[in-house]
Amino acid sequence: PVSPPSVSCRLLVVCKQLGYRPPGPWSLLRPLRSFSSSAMGDNDGSEIIEHHVEEEMEKKCTRSHAASSSFLESVTPSDREGHSGTQSSHRLLAYSDALISIIATVMILPVAHTKMENNEELRESVQLLLTTKIAVYLMTFLIVTVAWAAHIRLFQVIVRIDDCLALLNLACMMLITFLPYTFSLMATFPEHILGILLFCGCVMVMGIIQSVIVLYAFSRPFLLNEQIQIAENQTYYKHHILKVIMRVPIMCFFAGIFSFIFFQLSYVLLAIVIFLPYISRSLKWCRNKAIGQVEDTPDSMLFYTYLPNEPLSKERVEAFSDGVYAIVATLLILDICKDNVPDPTVVQKQFGGSLIAALQVYGPEYLAYFGSFATVGLLWFVHHSLFLHVTKTTRFMGLLNTFSLAFVGGLPLAYELTHEFPHNSRNELEAIQISCVIIFFAGIFQLAIWVVALYNEQETLHPYVRYGGREHIFMLAKLSLYPCVALGTFFLTCVLSKFSASIFHLMEITVPFAFLVLRLLVRVGLALLRLVFCPDRPDHRVIVEEGDDETRVPFNALVT
Amino acid sequence: PVSPPSVSCRLLVVCKQLGYRPPGPWSLLRPLRSFSSSAMGDNDGSEIIEHHVEEEMEKKCTRSHAASSSFLESVTPSDREGHSGTQSSHRLLAYSDALISIIATVMILPVAHTKMENNEELRESVQLLLTTKIAVYLMTFLIVTVAWAAHIRLFQVIVRIDDCLALLNLACMMLITFLPYTFSLMATFPEHILGILLFCGCVMVMGIIQSVIVLYAFSRPFLLNEQIQIAENQTYYKHHILKVIMRVPIMCFFAGIFSFIFFQLSYVLLAIVIFLPYISRSLKWCRNKAIGQVEDTPDSMLFYTYLPNEPLSKERVEAFSDGVYAIVATLLILDICKDNVPDPTVVQKQFGGSLIAALQVYGPEYLAYFGSFATVGLLWFVHHSLFLHVTKTTRFMGLLNTFSLAFVGGLPLAYELTHEFPHNSRNELEAIQISCVIIFFAGIFQLAIWVVALYNEQETLHPYVRYGGREHIFMLAKLSLYPCVALGTFFLTCVLSKFSASIFHLMEITVPFAFLVLRLLVRVGLALLRLVFCPDRPDHRVIVEEGDDETRVPFNALVT
Repeated sequence: PVSPPSVSCRLLVVCKQLGYRPPGPWSLLRPLRSFSSSAMGDNDGSEIIEHHVEEEMEKKCTRSHAASSSFLESVTPSDREGHSGTQSSHRLLAYSDALISIIATVMILPVAHTKMENNEELRESVQLLLTTKIAVYLMTFLIVTVAWAAHIRLFQVIVRIDDCLALLNLACMMLITFLPYTFSLMATFPEHILGILLFCGCVMVMGIIQSVIVLYAFSRPFLLNEQIQIAENQTYYKHHILKVIMRVPIMCFFAGIFSFIFFQLSYVLLAIVIFLPYISRSLKWCRNKAIGQVEDTPDSMLFYTYLPNEPLSKERVEAFSDGVYAIVATLLILDICKDNVPDPTVVQKQFGGSLIAALQVYGPEYLAYFGSFATVGLLWFVHHSLFLHVTKTTRFMGLLNTFSLAFVGGLPLAYELTHEFPHNSRNELEAIQISCVIIFFAGIFQLAIWVVALYNEQETLHPYVRYGGREHIFMLAKLSLYPCVALGTFFLTCVLSKFSASIFHLMEITVPFAFLVLRLLVRVGLALLRLVFCPDRPDHRVIVEEGDDETRVPFNALVT
Repeated sequence: PVSPPSVSCRLLVVCKQLGYRPPGPWSLLRPLRSFSSSAMGDNDGSEIIEHHVEEEMEKKCTRSHAASSSFLESVTPSDREGHSGTQSSHRLLAYSDALISIIATVMILPVAHTKMENNEELRESVQLLLTTKIAVYLMTFLIVTVAWAAHIRLFQVIVRIDDCLALLNLACMMLITFLPYTFSLMATFPEHILGILLFCGCVMVMGIIQSVIVLYAFSRPFLLNEQIQIAENQTYYKHHILKVIMRVPIMCFFAGIFSFIFFQLSYVLLAIVIFLPYISRSLKWCRNKAIGQVEDTPDSMLFYTYLPNEPLSKERVEAFSDGVYAIVATLLILDICKDNVPDPTVVQKQFGGSLIAALQVYGPEYLAYFGSFATVGLLWFVHHSLFLHVTKTTRFMGLLNTFSLAFVGGLPLAYELTHEFPHNSRNELEAIQISCVIIFFAGIFQLAIWVVALYNEQETLHPYVRYGGREHIFMLAKLSLYPCVALGTFFLTCVLSKFSASIFHLMEITVPFAFLVLRLLVRVGLALLRLVFCPDRPDHRVIVEEGDDETRVPFNALVT
């Protein structure tokens, strides 16, 4: 297909207007040819060319973004002082996400390294210690994700950065990474005020840094989100954002002061701080229900509201989840590399120089590693498949995702426990059942994200996975595979407690293969269902689905 | 500025052709208005609007990508079986990068946890152990980055994935994460063949999985890079890629067999495997110089060549570097959270219940944490500033980046060493000097990336940082700040060895502030230089620079 000159000329003009600088005549002509061929040949364009167009689109976008910034910078040579160092914030946010996800999951390590005792006397104290450590892990995870959500909110307002903001953000990150230590102190010395004071100090300094960031960004409006840039009431926005940011540090300040008088009160205050948005939201809701007053600040709705459907950057939710899944998947290999290399002298003395015999002792630990890596990897895979079809992430979906990730963080620990105890002991059974429960909750919260998204499917989901969409059933199968398997294993181990370990290992091995043939399984299952329930109307479902699909695609509606 | 209908109509048509589905009339109109205003008002458009346009561009690209894929999928409802599960590979690659960067840096942990002894007798054996562990760390880093480079190369050919490829890739990742353990075994039992066999087994299985990935992708050509998709000699490409991929596993197979006969030979073979591309490249170069033969495979030049200027995905280099910097920055807080929370009974007995007194013992460790976090964070900041202005990454730049990252990985260890020894001892001085050397090399390799990029600046660098560009001097200052400071500290500690610790801590504290005021410092420095060397021509430099800038911007050349 040869492109007529009119189309390519028009494209060339628009490309220039969009600030798209073609890197050379060769690379310009190829996309043009493919675009025009897909635009002209209405239906005879084969799939390959269409995929080809899509690829070109992606590349063009990346390129045109880079080119447009260079174009914009090159046509404004006068603003040498102003913002020649302005940068896109993308990589800074990716780095922050990586740091925060590591910190959120790191506190599972002390939990995992608590050695279990079979001695009944010591068991009580170890269990107390374990409970403390698990509490620290969950508290850290909660606080760090709250700080992360605040960070997202801040950088949804500030969309471009310069060197100064990058350095301030690094200082903020350093304080966030210090938070887990303050929790460890609080948990170990609950009656000592030092932990509280350190925590409050960190939060206050972070609040001050964030306020400085906001003030700096508002003094250079080109760094801001363009909706605020073009707004007339910039000062109103600034005050609103500062008010929201400073709320937490001020409460921490009071918590710090109260800790000198009556330290239990500070813990209550700190708990209130975390749930403040939810409390204020529900109070407002109650007031509105009681008095019947309408929302009086429609302007501030875009940012820093705490509504459940406030948008949350999907890119950052994905980056944070990737970080957590990656660090959790590799936690066990850390331990294996450190602890499971036998000492040469021990091998010589105890095993007569046979390395293989020495390594066989560690057998269950390798199994635990592969099991936990596979489970975490597959949960990531399910998450990835889900978020491919999510078009907008809301605050509530983000919260459910956080819960799911908190359980994922506990997985390596659970897997490690399964081989700590003697075979067929009560402890082993308990450890296996705990693993099943953790997998179940990690999976069920992923399913919950999708269910919540379905309630507002027009905005949040791709047409394919909406009710009646082509991939709806398949997505349901993917999301419910792990919860179902975990539940099944749990009840099987209750009944056949003798074979609990074998059942668990069998589950570990079969699930990856189940994912490989899931599409086939779903199709066979559907065919069977159709055969059983409506053998006289074999093609009914497919027709409805296709008809539904047509009406659901907004682009077609726009063209006709 | 109101847009004339012709421009917006044309844009609307092209938007449709590009597959851009406007989410609503409101969001469509805003970009149109701003685009046309920037296109029409040639120079009266203020900075704010231009930034605004750029933001819109970014959003539009993201949106149009999402929309285009939904559009393309929606217009091809017939290919239900074929590739309805096709996905962009972006997130899979980000997750792989995160996993690989964690694995690459994890082996520094056993090095850091080797306790140093002041006892002269034990010192020898500890130093031997430390050397072994450092060798394992460097070897792992090298091998893992080689595997990562192979992964990049593979997914530059395969640009779209489906569920099956995602699962195969996860299996491949699991094997990569197991590699460090095989090295630990090799280092601890150098004369035992089990480590070699395990390593060779992992590499061979990885080779088989990668071959399966390639065969699978070539059987579904819509998954491939479009340059291969439209190529006629697809089979040639397939064979070439398979040949390159299988080279390493086959050599490992032989190394495994030789290990039974003469295990030293297998180590030599494994070393050859790593440097194979460089060896074959230099052999080919020698042959070409000797015989004068020209390159006979110009078609295969795009992928799987090992030329120093072979492009390497810039996005993935950034993602990998971010992962390494993030994990290195948080390594010390891991240790602090685990080891530096005192036991309540110890506090009660030894410090009379005073927690502050108990924590003062750990003072130097907090300092080491903040120092290493700040240094790693600032090195990330320099890396970030450099890569903002890099437009294309080559293989050679990637190699230098890897060297820089390998030194960055050693930083927390060096910082931890600085407080392990008694004050003013010879060991303390050595530890501080090692820290300086590590910082120096990490910084100098970053500088080297820029210098290499400057040799081919038209392709690899943004006009701003080329010779005579507006940010050239500033970038030089940023990149050379850490090497210069490290070198200065090193020599100062040699001269004033009494005050080495104070000098080092002073350096840690001042460098962040130096970065904050660097722009000012550079300007003052340049003004001073001008005053000293050419006081009669005060504005010469600025004029040259601006004139230079005009000629260097390709977009202007294209418009005129």
